[in-house]
Amino acid sequence: MAYELYYWPNIQGRGEFIRLALEEAGTDYIDVARLPKHSGRGMPALLHYLADAESIQPPFAPPFLKDGDFVIAQTANILFYLGTRLGLAPRAEHERLWAHQLQLTVADLISEVHDTHHPIASSLYYEDQKKEAKKRAADFIAKRLPKYLAYFTQVLEQNPRRGGFMVGGRLSYVDLSMFQIIEGLRYAFPKAMQRLEPEHSGLTRLHDRVAERPNIAAYLASDRRLPFSEEGIFRRYRELDT
Amino acid sequence: MAYELYYWPNIQGRGEFIRLALEEAGTDYIDVARLPKHSGRGMPALLHYLADAESIQPPFAPPFLKDGDFVIAQTANILFYLGTRLGLAPRAEHERLWAHQLQLTVADLISEVHDTHHPIASSLYYEDQKKEAKKRAADFIAKRLPKYLAYFTQVLEQNPRRGGFMVGGRLSYVDLSMFQIIEGLRYAFPKAMQRLEPEHSGLTRLHDRVAERPNIAAYLASDRRLPFSEEGIFRRYRELDT
Repeated sequence: MAYELYYWPNIQGRGEFIRLALEEAGTDYIDVARLPKHSGRGMPALLHYLADAESIQPPFAPPFLKDGDFVIAQTANILFYLGTRLGLAPRAEHERLWAHQLQLTVADLISEVHDTHHPIASSLYYEDQKKEAKKRAADFIAKRLPKYLAYFTQVLEQNPRRGGFMVGGRLSYVDLSMFQIIEGLRYAFPKAMQRLEPEHSGLTRLHDRVAERPNIAAYLASDRRLPFSEEGIFRRYRELDT
Repeated sequence: MAYELYYWPNIQGRGEFIRLALEEAGTDYIDVARLPKHSGRGMPALLHYLADAESIQPPFAPPFLKDGDFVIAQTANILFYLGTRLGLAPRAEHERLWAHQLQLTVADLISEVHDTHHPIASSLYYEDQKKEAKKRAADFIAKRLPKYLAYFTQVLEQNPRRGGFMVGGRLSYVDLSMFQIIEGLRYAFPKAMQRLEPEHSGLTRLHDRVAERPNIAAYLASDRRLPFSEEGIFRRYRELDT
């Protein structure tokens, strides 16, 4: 039975980290909320799970994944679950937890990226928190982003397998997520990344290597890959990119 | 060999979620950064791991745990690792992932609590972002906190085992974390909680039940339990509690 991914249909967002794993593995999956309503899918199917007061293990928010009767939420948790099943994670417990630890740090970075444009409230428009966003984005670019990039570069360089992957000697979902992070950062903060990326060339090489994998290249060229936009997590607001 | 917990020595912070699990289990552990320097421990031992450019699997930030040679970071990841070892998590895979999913949602809530007093930058003093903090805290109390409390109450009420625990029919680390969440929220936002808690009495009962467990009660009465303070995640600033 195909995996069912439930995520907002118009943005890459957090769902994209799951999509990349499913696409790389070439596994059957349904991107439920992007299918037509009349098929019993689409947004109503997603909202059903969020609103279902009878659901025994309800998700707090998308993305969530259905595998048969099992529903699992939280991006890093879904990747932890899918990782071994899709051959995109190490098998040994310590290595699996290390990959997960990195993915949780990716999740922290993503939250900070989101808060560069929404430092006050997700429920308010960007325009209503633009002044605060400028301050937060300036700190993000000056302090937080360099710290994250330095950390991920260190992980890459000190991986004893020296194969250019984040964890062990083979591609894992963490590498796919690093690709998406670099893509997203280039979209949202082109000036800052032009300055910072050359110091982190290992991440650039990893990005390029992921982009060239046949399944990922095919996905990126397809209309299954949604564009970045100012509705997603990575947003291009010129005034935030200092 | 005793577990070694590495966390800032003066605050509860994220480390407290790990301390509560270790204390409930009555297992041997060392709270490394709180020990004297001359023993080879204390803050230098913590900073060593953060600064160690040779470390193969470096933590991005505390808390992290050492179990023999294995170092693991990210609060929810540490609890996932300890959960089965300490008898504080279900054994079946789906249930373990469900507990972890809830813990990751606790982590999201904690990040939002932190950002009520630091919406612009962790590197700035509260006083330098007080105006923005007031706005963010107002949205947190009006929108986000009720959403989280309603969610956790729903999880508790719909647990098919009906034993008053978050996951399955026995105490898990998620229950310990819910205790800490309620304690922290009462400290930081006493007025808001006075208003919100009565609608979520299941969480109050769970809180009380955890507090009465012999190992937890002994811990809370000991000087191992640090006080809440305006250095931690849960901070009492009157002007943020609306």
